[in-house]
Amino acid sequence: MLWQQRTYVIAKALEAAGTAPSGANLQPWHFAVVSGPQTKKRIREAAEIEEREFYEHRASAEWLVALEPLGTDSNKPFLETAPYLIAVFLQKFGTLEDGRKVKHYYPTESTGLATGILITALHHAGLATLTHTPSPMKFLNEILDRPKSERPFLLLVVGYPASDAEVPDVKRKALEDYVSFIDS
Amino acid sequence: MLWQQRTYVIAKALEAAGTAPSGANLQPWHFAVVSGPQTKKRIREAAEIEEREFYEHRASAEWLVALEPLGTDSNKPFLETAPYLIAVFLQKFGTLEDGRKVKHYYPTESTGLATGILITALHHAGLATLTHTPSPMKFLNEILDRPKSERPFLLLVVGYPASDAEVPDVKRKALEDYVSFIDS
Repeated sequence: MLWQQRTYVIAKALEAAGTAPSGANLQPWHFAVVSGPQTKKRIREAAEIEEREFYEHRASAEWLVALEPLGTDSNKPFLETAPYLIAVFLQKFGTLEDGRKVKHYYPTESTGLATGILITALHHAGLATLTHTPSPMKFLNEILDRPKSERPFLLLVVGYPASDAEVPDVKRKALEDYVSFIDS
Repeated sequence: MLWQQRTYVIAKALEAAGTAPSGANLQPWHFAVVSGPQTKKRIREAAEIEEREFYEHRASAEWLVALEPLGTDSNKPFLETAPYLIAVFLQKFGTLEDGRKVKHYYPTESTGLATGILITALHHAGLATLTHTPSPMKFLNEILDRPKSERPFLLLVVGYPASDAEVPDVKRKALEDYVSFIDS
């Protein structure tokens, strides 16, 4: 029952995400909701391999400097301990019932809007989220059995905050630093 | 006063958008809020030139078929009649106070999340929105005086629905068509 209630909240938030506008209304997204411990373990292991490679070799010095204030590293225990992971995929192509392929338009932009709405809905329900983008994320296709026509967009970690959770003191730009008003 | 109240609602929704997560928390977005009739007229004229070119030459036959159920064409009167246009830009680079450039990470994805939150906040305030992506959108940099390091992401048309507004009967996928649940 508790499990069902939890999934109900997640499903309702995903229904909100599904109302997002998209290129030619083709809704070029897929959300894989992972609650199973075995699959979460596989995702954690694969992500940590990529992340070690990223922090030790692949990331530029500039990128590591940019990440430094956030205190992130290659350890991702939350991928196993969080109750839900939602892997978001964008679909470069869709498939009609007769098997024909249909091109999608603005799939990255559209999936971004849907995921923004998803995050808002989850927060509105009292849940906390963390956006995670292991680089690269191809392993998500394999583990979650998603076709090649789908590209991982991000991995959303979802749950109630732990009672001893620490949140980095993240600075936000002031409104005037990212908004201009044109009234003429 | 009424004008100020309106702008207050828009500003509050933009503050919500500014809480979006982003690559290395670099917040790679800019929102240009247009309420001035002269600027809206210029945007409409420039958009309609591109849109005529799109519908008559640039769009593939497949793309036009995909758009057909939505009943769109190259006329965009709403760009002049809507009270607000919000032109959303993603920043490929940021600029430090000393003038040095800083690379941004995942700017398209991050700006998508911020815009999804913006749309949700505006709807929550009772406003209607329309996402519009004239193709290409470079003219927005010129008209709105935005630097080359910024790329137009989309144009959000914002206002209260007209009393005689007609909404196309847009179909949405069922939850099971875009969500999978993995509990093992």
